Amino acid sequence: MSVEAILNTHPRPLIADPAALAGCIDDCVTCAAFCTVCADACLAEEDVSAMVRCVRRCLDCADACTETSRIVSRQTDPDQRTQSAAIEACLAACRACAEECERHAAHHEHCRLCAEQCRRCERACEALLAAVGAA
Amino acid sequence: MSVEAILNTHPRPLIADPAALAGCIDDCVTCAAFCTVCADACLAEEDVSAMVRCVRRCLDCADACTETSRIVSRQTDPDQRTQSAAIEACLAACRACAEECERHAAHHEHCRLCAEQCRRCERACEALLAAVGAA
Amino acid sequence: MSVEAILNTHPRPLIADPAALAGCIDDCVTCAAFCTVCADACLAEEDVSAMVRCVRRCLDCADACTETSRIVSRQTDPDQRTQSAAIEACLAACRACAEECERHAAHHEHCRLCAEQCRRCERACEALLAAVGAA
Amino acid sequence: MSVEAILNTHPRPLIADPAALAGCIDDCVTCAAFCTVCADACLAEEDVSAMVRCVRRCLDCADACTETSRIVSRQTDPDQRTQSAAIEACLAACRACAEECERHAAHHEHCRLCAEQCRRCERACEALLAAVGAA
Repeated sequence: MSVEAILNTHPRPLIADPAALAGCIDDCVTCAAFCTVCADACLAEEDVSAMVRCVRRCLDCADACTETSRIVSRQTDPDQRTQSAAIEACLAACRACAEECERHAAHHEHCRLCAEQCRRCERACEALLAAVGAA
Repeated sequence: MSVEAILNTHPRPLIADPAALAGCIDDCVTCAAFCTVCADACLAEEDVSAMVRCVRRCLDCADACTETSRIVSRQTDPDQRTQSAAIEACLAACRACAEECERHAAHHEHCRLCAEQCRRCERACEALLAAVGAA
Repeated sequence: MSVEAILNTHPRPLIADPAALAGCIDDCVTCAAFCTVCADACLAEEDVSAMVRCVRRCLDCADACTETSRIVSRQTDPDQRTQSAAIEACLAACRACAEECERHAAHHEHCRLCAEQCRRCERACEALLAAVGAA
Repeated sequence: MSVEAILNTHPRPLIADPAALAGCIDDCVTCAAFCTVCADACLAEEDVSAMVRCVRRCLDCADACTETSRIVSRQTDPDQRTQSAAIEACLAACRACAEECERHAAHHEHCRLCAEQCRRCERACEALLAAVGAA
């Protein structure tokens, strides 16, 4: 379920267009969940030694997405530098994870699905960065 | 988007029925996001001193839901006591948060929506506890 | 640095004896850090396929310790069931991680150090559970 | 206890000088704990409506410090952009939190202690950024 409905009840003006904001939060929390599953699924593969880099990138991405979803969920007295830097950090983690998962997408379906979600989250972060800059 | 598709690509047998498992993870990550927004929205209300307990319960619930979603997302070599204790902790946090948010539901719409999501997550945790016990 | 000094400036009565409370928070945050390093060090070992269970237990333990440190750090309007369930979940994760790390302690020094910290955190959780029950 | 001992047992070359790296991780985990306590202590103050911005900055800082401590704790196959962006995000959050806590330092001792720890963590992040760039 999207956070858009609850964001729209917030007493303060939102930091950006509600759809861009909710889209980024929704994609971040989904991406964190996908990366957590993918890291663990990679660990369970027979070729685990070939998946080490992928586990690592997925763990970083889950952490960055979780943190960023929390920081951009807050509308009260935001600090613009903290906000932008968090989105940038998430974007970098999504990109690095997508690149690695794409290398394994042909032989591990969880990597294919995870890469897709990372790319979706990367685009949502780019859209929110633009929307926040424009706000 | 649900984690069910990616869970179904995991090389190991899942710790529980896929629908119960995915339902709990999906509700946990959504609940963490709702509680993060609600805590922040409470801080922005004029009657903030009446909302202090609600902020606190929302923060606890966001933390418990995040952790539990991560632990139950992992299917590789699970420790049954860790798993069950994490779900129990999440259940307790959802219940405490729902009870407090329900007290403010009539005058703060974010509390009404957050309480609903906490109750949904509470039921998903109960269902997963039953499914894990039966596995 | 210990959180004891800042806990002692909190306007509310603490949920437990300051030394037991600060000890548990300090050990949880240290344990989360040790487990994060140990999971990653296990991934980098040549015998990574033998370390899969250890990675998984370390990741769970890092998540449980982080969440519990946050929940017990809060003194304002605590919910006793949430609090106790969080400490129990942390205790279970520390025990499961210690047991696995101990199996590798003779050949991987990071596992030996991590197991020691998990046992320390397990005892700190037990002490806090007793102190909270007595409060 | 410092993570330096366990970092030194990692099979891979560290991403930076061990003292700078361990210093940053140690300060991040301590700062996350201080900010969690300070946010909650602010909520318990009688002048809570004057502390709203401080609560918010402390929550952001706790999230950023937790995430960054995890990402820089990993030495296996790091992505340099993810790493640097995480440290930058942490730096921004520490700075914003320190600035706000300093405004309340004269009348709330928890803010004074939290501001000090945020400044310490800010310097540790700057030192690690320099050390990572030089690596």
